[in-house]
Amino acid sequence: MPDLDIKALLFDVFGTCVDLRAGLKRAIEAVARSHDVTIDAYAFAGAWRDEYQPAVEQVRAGKRPFVALEHLNRESLDTVLPRFGLDALSEDERRELNFAWRRLDPWPGAVAGLTRLKRRFIIAPHSNGNLAMLVGMAKFGGLPWDCILGAEIAQSYKPNPASYRGAVAMLGLAPGEVMMVAGHNGDLRAAQAQGLRTGFIVRPLERRPNASPEFEPTGAWDVVAKDFHELADRLGA
Amino acid sequence: MPDLDIKALLFDVFGTCVDLRAGLKRAIEAVARSHDVTIDAYAFAGAWRDEYQPAVEQVRAGKRPFVALEHLNRESLDTVLPRFGLDALSEDERRELNFAWRRLDPWPGAVAGLTRLKRRFIIAPHSNGNLAMLVGMAKFGGLPWDCILGAEIAQSYKPNPASYRGAVAMLGLAPGEVMMVAGHNGDLRAAQAQGLRTGFIVRPLERRPNASPEFEPTGAWDVVAKDFHELADRLGA
Repeated sequence: MPDLDIKALLFDVFGTCVDLRAGLKRAIEAVARSHDVTIDAYAFAGAWRDEYQPAVEQVRAGKRPFVALEHLNRESLDTVLPRFGLDALSEDERRELNFAWRRLDPWPGAVAGLTRLKRRFIIAPHSNGNLAMLVGMAKFGGLPWDCILGAEIAQSYKPNPASYRGAVAMLGLAPGEVMMVAGHNGDLRAAQAQGLRTGFIVRPLERRPNASPEFEPTGAWDVVAKDFHELADRLGA
Repeated sequence: MPDLDIKALLFDVFGTCVDLRAGLKRAIEAVARSHDVTIDAYAFAGAWRDEYQPAVEQVRAGKRPFVALEHLNRESLDTVLPRFGLDALSEDERRELNFAWRRLDPWPGAVAGLTRLKRRFIIAPHSNGNLAMLVGMAKFGGLPWDCILGAEIAQSYKPNPASYRGAVAMLGLAPGEVMMVAGHNGDLRAAQAQGLRTGFIVRPLERRPNASPEFEPTGAWDVVAKDFHELADRLGA
């Protein structure tokens, strides 16, 4: 990588660092069991997750002021629960279930790869998750971040340009000194448009049965790697 | 501590976690030597540091919009240099010298104490330093923060109330679940007024020859400890 002068790596989190659907599925199964309700927990996780983009889009489009993702997720949860016969969940149970987003398992090898990258670079999540969510997730899974960035710090959701510009400004770096790392082309396209370097991580497990080709690299990314260890190899870390 | 239900510890940094004057002195000596200028480096460090509160006060009082501490420090540096015969420093040298605030040594035992506290609590700096400065300092000294908070994240300098409220809100916690840890009474007084718990660390080395009694605990703090290990003992970490 002779042309790269990277000082910091920003990571997408959901799907790139952690397995979102498996973690949500586990939490939902436990709640459903305690209520003697039989549900398709994967379908529930998918339905909850599918509310995410429309909810965030309301903020991105300026139709409502910035609110933290956990607040949006909680609204979505309240929408989805009745569809699966789980209307009876108490306020405390809903609050706890919403915290499932803080208890997601890192992909195998992710922590070791990040630990290696941290020796050479500043590493930070740049996620649409809010700070408290990302700190909780880091404590749960051992993700060794140097600091927490993301939509809440920038007060702008990805892939809005202000989100990437805000994170880069907070680091006091030039955009070309920062690499966005993600398993989704859209995130990297938006980062690249703001002058950031790009690293695509292929996460086939993230792929859904009817998924678009979103999980194959389709852009001119600076690095394409199968995991964080290969990314470290490619960046000389 | 049967009455405390602490989930996160916020740390003052300059003087509480790191030795500010020794680090500045070292950097200034190196620059002066390279210019064949003999200066009292401790006096320079003191003069530079003494510009800090008046500069921050301009922002706290609303006389200028929020700007990052490194920006204020750079203005102060440009003011102080001529007084010590160092007008000749280049732009690059001034920029580098300003980064001395990122290269401050943790007090002995601070990293080990924080590492211990991190196992049980969220630990974060809540400093008037900006995020890039605090990340650089953490990388330099090995400070194992879970996330970086502080004036820049809250867009308000300590001891303004909005600074503490902003940090607590970002953590998604109640004020009583958060303890401010500092070696200065003023910081704790302001935090206590916002409902935070307080931990005073006695840092006698921080004391200057003509110092006020600021470095002795003078308030009704929840914990008074001689270092982070004693704090960990007292908090059951």
